[in-house]
Amino acid sequence: MTPFTPPTQDQLLAIRVNAGIDELGRTERFASAEPDMVEAIVEGVGQFAAGEFAPLNRIGDLEGAKLENGVVRLPDGFAEAYDEYVAQGWNSIASPVAHGGQGLPFTLACNVLENLGTANMAFNLLPMLSVGAIEALEHHGSEQQQATYLPKLVSGEWSGTMNLTEPQAGSDVGALRATAEPIEEGEHAGKYRIQGQKIYITWGDHELAKNIIHLVLARTPGAPAGSRGISLFVVPKYHVNDDGTLGPRNDLRPVSLEHKLGINASPTCVMSYGDNNACIGELVGAENKGLAAMFTMMNNARINVGAQGVQIGERATQQALAYARDRVQSSRAGSPDRTPVAIVEHPDVRRMILRMKAMTEGMRALLYFTAGQVDRGTLGDEAAAQRAEVLVPMLKAWATDVGIEVASIGVQIHGGMGFVEETGAAQHYRDARIAPIYEGTNGIQAADLVTRKLGMDGGNAVLSLFEELAHDAAGESALLALAQDCAAIAKWMRDEASLDDRLAGSVPFCTMCAVAVTGWELLKQLRAVKDGQAPAIAEGKAVTVRFFLDHIVPEAAGLRASATAGAGLLYALDANKLTA
Amino acid sequence: MTPFTPPTQDQLLAIRVNAGIDELGRTERFASAEPDMVEAIVEGVGQFAAGEFAPLNRIGDLEGAKLENGVVRLPDGFAEAYDEYVAQGWNSIASPVAHGGQGLPFTLACNVLENLGTANMAFNLLPMLSVGAIEALEHHGSEQQQATYLPKLVSGEWSGTMNLTEPQAGSDVGALRATAEPIEEGEHAGKYRIQGQKIYITWGDHELAKNIIHLVLARTPGAPAGSRGISLFVVPKYHVNDDGTLGPRNDLRPVSLEHKLGINASPTCVMSYGDNNACIGELVGAENKGLAAMFTMMNNARINVGAQGVQIGERATQQALAYARDRVQSSRAGSPDRTPVAIVEHPDVRRMILRMKAMTEGMRALLYFTAGQVDRGTLGDEAAAQRAEVLVPMLKAWATDVGIEVASIGVQIHGGMGFVEETGAAQHYRDARIAPIYEGTNGIQAADLVTRKLGMDGGNAVLSLFEELAHDAAGESALLALAQDCAAIAKWMRDEASLDDRLAGSVPFCTMCAVAVTGWELLKQLRAVKDGQAPAIAEGKAVTVRFFLDHIVPEAAGLRASATAGAGLLYALDANKLTA
Repeated sequence: MTPFTPPTQDQLLAIRVNAGIDELGRTERFASAEPDMVEAIVEGVGQFAAGEFAPLNRIGDLEGAKLENGVVRLPDGFAEAYDEYVAQGWNSIASPVAHGGQGLPFTLACNVLENLGTANMAFNLLPMLSVGAIEALEHHGSEQQQATYLPKLVSGEWSGTMNLTEPQAGSDVGALRATAEPIEEGEHAGKYRIQGQKIYITWGDHELAKNIIHLVLARTPGAPAGSRGISLFVVPKYHVNDDGTLGPRNDLRPVSLEHKLGINASPTCVMSYGDNNACIGELVGAENKGLAAMFTMMNNARINVGAQGVQIGERATQQALAYARDRVQSSRAGSPDRTPVAIVEHPDVRRMILRMKAMTEGMRALLYFTAGQVDRGTLGDEAAAQRAEVLVPMLKAWATDVGIEVASIGVQIHGGMGFVEETGAAQHYRDARIAPIYEGTNGIQAADLVTRKLGMDGGNAVLSLFEELAHDAAGESALLALAQDCAAIAKWMRDEASLDDRLAGSVPFCTMCAVAVTGWELLKQLRAVKDGQAPAIAEGKAVTVRFFLDHIVPEAAGLRASATAGAGLLYALDANKLTA
Repeated sequence: MTPFTPPTQDQLLAIRVNAGIDELGRTERFASAEPDMVEAIVEGVGQFAAGEFAPLNRIGDLEGAKLENGVVRLPDGFAEAYDEYVAQGWNSIASPVAHGGQGLPFTLACNVLENLGTANMAFNLLPMLSVGAIEALEHHGSEQQQATYLPKLVSGEWSGTMNLTEPQAGSDVGALRATAEPIEEGEHAGKYRIQGQKIYITWGDHELAKNIIHLVLARTPGAPAGSRGISLFVVPKYHVNDDGTLGPRNDLRPVSLEHKLGINASPTCVMSYGDNNACIGELVGAENKGLAAMFTMMNNARINVGAQGVQIGERATQQALAYARDRVQSSRAGSPDRTPVAIVEHPDVRRMILRMKAMTEGMRALLYFTAGQVDRGTLGDEAAAQRAEVLVPMLKAWATDVGIEVASIGVQIHGGMGFVEETGAAQHYRDARIAPIYEGTNGIQAADLVTRKLGMDGGNAVLSLFEELAHDAAGESALLALAQDCAAIAKWMRDEASLDDRLAGSVPFCTMCAVAVTGWELLKQLRAVKDGQAPAIAEGKAVTVRFFLDHIVPEAAGLRASATAGAGLLYALDANKLTA
């Protein structure tokens, strides 16, 4: 596996141009995000990730997480790297100052996770999941709960998990059956007795952090059916004494680990709560409002999953480029010189490398555009908050699909060596496959775009994006045409199409939108480098942006027929008459 | 893993409509391919594959092939299934009657491999590689060699391998260094002493067959450099006595097995020849003509690799459809009835299933169209032989890419369960990844299309295809437009584009061509079912063909910009300035 070189310059460009970090740094709230600090963070976490997390990527894949005598074990080195991560303070970037955080923009926290995840996607899920727990408690926890849990979650000494899924309740969270029984008296009066089994719990158990704070969705007695009867509970692995020290073990345990296609170092647990009827949890927020609480953190979590497309793309591209420069095979076609050349010199290999690069830089531009809108939302800019909501499904769905594509091209560039596990190219192809599935499948993202997001502000939340884009893209005919197609389809969906028709076209439409917006964000980068920004990567940027606009944008336009075909054909045949 | 149900009806339709088996059966050469016989073969091998090969697919993946004390071991059941395969005569379908074969059309041999490979892609590589050895000896071996090796290769009692690749010689076969020294006197006078190491040798060792006949490329002393100095040798694992019995072991051995991403039951060997300077081989054909001999069998081998796209597509679709019918989650969007439904009822899942089905049936139509042209070529039809050559790179490249895509959609439909290995969906995603690489990478296929194949008959070999298509596609505006695009690009490539420009656009062009031709072949199927053929699948066929023409054909049109962009941008930046 090629060592990881942090793409610091490209990250800084995207953070400046697409997130607009300078503007954020001029606000009181984010005053500490001044240019020197931003650079120090981006450079520092890149070096940390490359030095500490990246060397564990291959061994994490080979040995994986293991459940031994009821305890999850990670390969050697993971515990030390995590300790160092906590010690250096990388976990606390965007958390509130009141709880020990650094209060910096979400954009920079995204950059921390981008670097960690590029170095080691499976390991990065540990801090990534903790973010969800922190946000849940920050927004919905009582003062007491915040004081008890937040400081150590923010520092990273403790980690957090999200417990939604049950065997019968996946995309349909409302179908969950875990229960929470109020405790009337005794030591735990006012708390709840939690019972149930949860699946797919990422980093559900491990010994890297001293305590694990589980956020668990469950139903109280007599709760309404479906998603309106779900409450959120905080359920620590070890009880926490009033003085902050750890008390006895709570009644919860990992039952088994999934044997997965990839991200093997991330323990995906089946968790059992209350085997001995002694699992104690506290209600977070109001009863029956658990799903709403979950949704407040969902947007940011989806951004961080979208970022996994960037991560896999970056790592696979570095790996493939190194191989293509190194591997000598055949002379250049048509050349009188019969000397074999590095395969990067062959036109189609060069095309594949540029495609990987253009896609990766594009995903990154979209990531930081979205993150910057989130930060503006935090500052009270409603339009930006709305725009972030519109961008999230595009980023999550498109970038995770592209992550697979880029990883697959990476395997291809390695030829036979790509199919052999020892190069590491295949690991990216396996790891990448989870991202379109978790945190809301890409189908669900696309459905969210054509229903809830398209419904915001009478459709203007979506349409204004393409209006601005079209205004800004003069001279770029393919991009302009794609933006106009997106706007026309959005209007058709809003004004004419049935709900089924919209859903039938949702995925191709979502891809078209994501590519159009990404083309726009890359165009902004191109203009910035022409204005003298990022001179070290200016030449390369001019090439990759052109490639994106001239190859990938026209390709996306080919999806129009699919996006507007409607649902008629899909239901022309009864499901029971469908045969493979 | 869902059991395999052979898609007999769709195969028969494609064999009739796209390969034109009835017409072939009316020739003297293929007179035995009468309708009853064709049906008996397609049904029979489907049942055999489902009953004997399919149940070993999962265990083959889990346990894989293992090298133990110098011997390759397969999981329990493989040896018995192979014995049964030989006993039932499935190995000999298309081989010459003179050597114990059944002399049936290649089309039907393709169907045997399609069924075996759908049941078990890794296992199917064993018979698939033997085909190459049979063809090499059939076309280039001496009478003596044919008499010695062919009968048992044809029956399947012995298996064959192809030994081309060395660490420094992959796509550039001409760079190989294995040597063959003529033996002047003694027992082996007239034969050669073979020395060298070969890698990626599929089923290079095993004990399912009683002998393994290795076809090995090597250089004789003083041979010209590069590909013009390569000779072909037959090198048996066990020497064969004059009476046909097996003699002592030859000096060759499997050194190690690759640890691969997929097709784990297929032993991919590093083979060492002549460790003790006692590896004896015989020259096949003329000295220095080895590469030409290899190429004669390459076309058919590439068809069989293209067929692996069909195989993975079929199996993944069956698996996903079964899951989507079974898995209940959420009610239909917008429905007043809140009862959860099987996910196949949700529009986007239905879209994914139809895409998988349309792609798979499309690949199959293209496979049998190509196979039928090969059979016509065997009958002396030069135009058909040429057309087969044009179709081969399209089939190999496009179908193997689509195999990955369909397998990936299959994982997606399973949600979280798709990422867990126990469902089997992930195995298809892993297995599928090799097919775009081996037997000439897809980049090499596309290069072959825009150079050698586009050069045939002054471009008419390619152009005539799109002329006929356009003539036949009246009323199908998207298909017509795509065919016209393909023709225009072909002319541009032939008349104006530089070699680099052609290669730069080769892969997107190849995809466009494959989709256009596949659309045409599906249109023929649609007309046939409207005329009353294949009533059992007529309803479904009408839907999948429409889906292909209305969704997939317009999508391919989006590649036009990429196909015609030229190489300028690719080389705008020096390779050493490219950074990931």
